[in-house]
Amino acid sequence: MRNWEFAKGHGTQNDFVLLKDRTNSVELTPDDVRFLCNRRAGIGGDGVIRAVWAKYMPEWTGDPDMWFMDYRNSDGSLAQMCGNGLRVFARYLAEEGLSDAGELAVATRAGQRGVERLTDTSFRADIGQVQVSDAPTWVRLGDASFVATTVDVGNPHAVVLLPESVNLAGLDLDHSPVFDEQVYPEGANVEFVHVTGPRALSMRVFERGSGETMSCGTGVVATAAAQARQIAGEGHFDVHVPGGDLSVDLADGHAHLTGPAVIVAHGSVLLPDDAR
Amino acid sequence: MRNWEFAKGHGTQNDFVLLKDRTNSVELTPDDVRFLCNRRAGIGGDGVIRAVWAKYMPEWTGDPDMWFMDYRNSDGSLAQMCGNGLRVFARYLAEEGLSDAGELAVATRAGQRGVERLTDTSFRADIGQVQVSDAPTWVRLGDASFVATTVDVGNPHAVVLLPESVNLAGLDLDHSPVFDEQVYPEGANVEFVHVTGPRALSMRVFERGSGETMSCGTGVVATAAAQARQIAGEGHFDVHVPGGDLSVDLADGHAHLTGPAVIVAHGSVLLPDDAR
Repeated sequence: MRNWEFAKGHGTQNDFVLLKDRTNSVELTPDDVRFLCNRRAGIGGDGVIRAVWAKYMPEWTGDPDMWFMDYRNSDGSLAQMCGNGLRVFARYLAEEGLSDAGELAVATRAGQRGVERLTDTSFRADIGQVQVSDAPTWVRLGDASFVATTVDVGNPHAVVLLPESVNLAGLDLDHSPVFDEQVYPEGANVEFVHVTGPRALSMRVFERGSGETMSCGTGVVATAAAQARQIAGEGHFDVHVPGGDLSVDLADGHAHLTGPAVIVAHGSVLLPDDAR
Repeated sequence: MRNWEFAKGHGTQNDFVLLKDRTNSVELTPDDVRFLCNRRAGIGGDGVIRAVWAKYMPEWTGDPDMWFMDYRNSDGSLAQMCGNGLRVFARYLAEEGLSDAGELAVATRAGQRGVERLTDTSFRADIGQVQVSDAPTWVRLGDASFVATTVDVGNPHAVVLLPESVNLAGLDLDHSPVFDEQVYPEGANVEFVHVTGPRALSMRVFERGSGETMSCGTGVVATAAAQARQIAGEGHFDVHVPGGDLSVDLADGHAHLTGPAVIVAHGSVLLPDDAR
C-alpha cells in the first residue's frame, strides 16, 4: 500500500484530486489515476492534477522555475490543459504555500499560462487565443437540428446559440448530439446556449468522452466567443453553467476566464498495490 | 467555515463519509449531509455515517456503552440501518482505535447489531431476521415480465431469479422496474439474479430512490433467502454484485452478511457555512 497526501478541489463543480510531487519522483500510473478518480472505490474526480517543479519535467523546455500542471483525465490519459483546473491548481499552490504571488505563471502541456488571484476564492486565467470559424455548421439533438458555430480554444467546440423558443433546461443531453464529422474529425464539445442578454449567457455542455458535465472552461470561452461574433463585439461576458458562474473577457481574439476555485478537503489516501 | 475530520470508505463500492462525534456535540444538518455526499462539490458518498457513543443518543434506549451508527442517506434523511455500512463502520472504529474487540455490538436505529472481524479487511455482520413471502409476485422491466419473490429484510425486496435464457448483463436498469404497488405500497428494491450454482448467485439491483447501485447489503441477503426458498435449504450462499463479492449465511431465518470493508482516505473537510 502507498500512502499519498492529496487535496480535493473544484471549479464550478469540475473536480480534481490534487497531488504534490515537487521533484517528479513518484510514479503516477494510469491505473493510479483511474483509482483516484473512481468516485466510489477511490476519492473521485474528473481528473488528477499533479504539481511538479517544471525543471523536473523532461518534456518542459520553457522557464524551469515555475510549477508544471501535470493534468490527467479520469481515464488515465494525459491532457494538455484544463481551464477550470488552472484556477483550482493556482488556489492549491497558494494554500500549500507553494506560491505567494498574486500573479502566477503555470507550465502546462499546452504551454505557459498566466493565472491571477483576484480574491481568496476567485481567479482569472489566461486561456490564450480563440478562433471562431466563419463557416456555420450544424448540430442535431434527437429530432431537432440547430445552426452551430465552430470555435477552436485549443480543442474543438460546436456552439449552438438556441432560438428563444427552445427551453435549455428541457434538452435531453443523456445522449450525444450529432455533428458533422467532416468539420470535427476528432470529435467536439457541444455547447447549448440560452442568450439571456447581449453579454449574458446560460450554457449546458456535452463533452466528448464524458457526456454532460457541470462545467467546461474552454466551452464557456467558446460560448462567449460565438456570441461576440454574433453581436460583433468583444469584451466582457457572463456565462452561467450548471455548476456555477463564470465570466470571459475577450480582446483581440485572446481570452481570459474568471471564476471560483475551491479546495474542499485535504487528506491522505491509501493506494492499493494492484492499482499499479 | 467548519473544519471536520473525516474518513472515506466503502463496502463493495457502497461508499460512505465517516465522522466521529463521541458526545453528539456537533450539529449535522441535512444540508451538511448533502454537501458531504455531493460527489463534485463535496467528498462524495452514498451516505454519511457518524460514530456517536450510544449514551449520548437520546433516542437510544439499549445498552449505553456501545457505538451508535448514525446513518444518513445522501439526500439528508435518516436511515435505520445499512448492511454494507455496518462493516465499514466496524472497520472505521477499529482503525480509529475506538474498538479493539474482534466482536462488536453496534447500536443502530433498527436495534443492536453484531459485527465480527474475520480478518483485517473482512467482516461478518448480523443482519437479523429475513422473511420470505409464500405468495409469488411479478416485476416488469421494459417489455419483459418476470416472477418475483417478496423478501423482507427490514426493508422490502422483490427478487427475480432469472431464467437461464436471460442475460443479466444485458438488462437495461437505466429505468425503474415496475412492481405491484399493492404488494409494495412503500416501494421496493428489485434484485435481478443469475443463478450460477445452487449456492452461487450473481445479482444486479435497482434501489428505490437511488436507481442501479454497485451493491446493496440487504438486497444480497434477500437474494440468498429467495434462492434458499427455491432449493428448500438454508446455509451458505456466495453472491456476486457489480461492486464485488459477498456471502450470506442463513439459519432459522436469521442472516449474516460477510464481505470486505475498506477505508480509502482520512482527511479534513471544510464545510461552507451556507451548507447549514
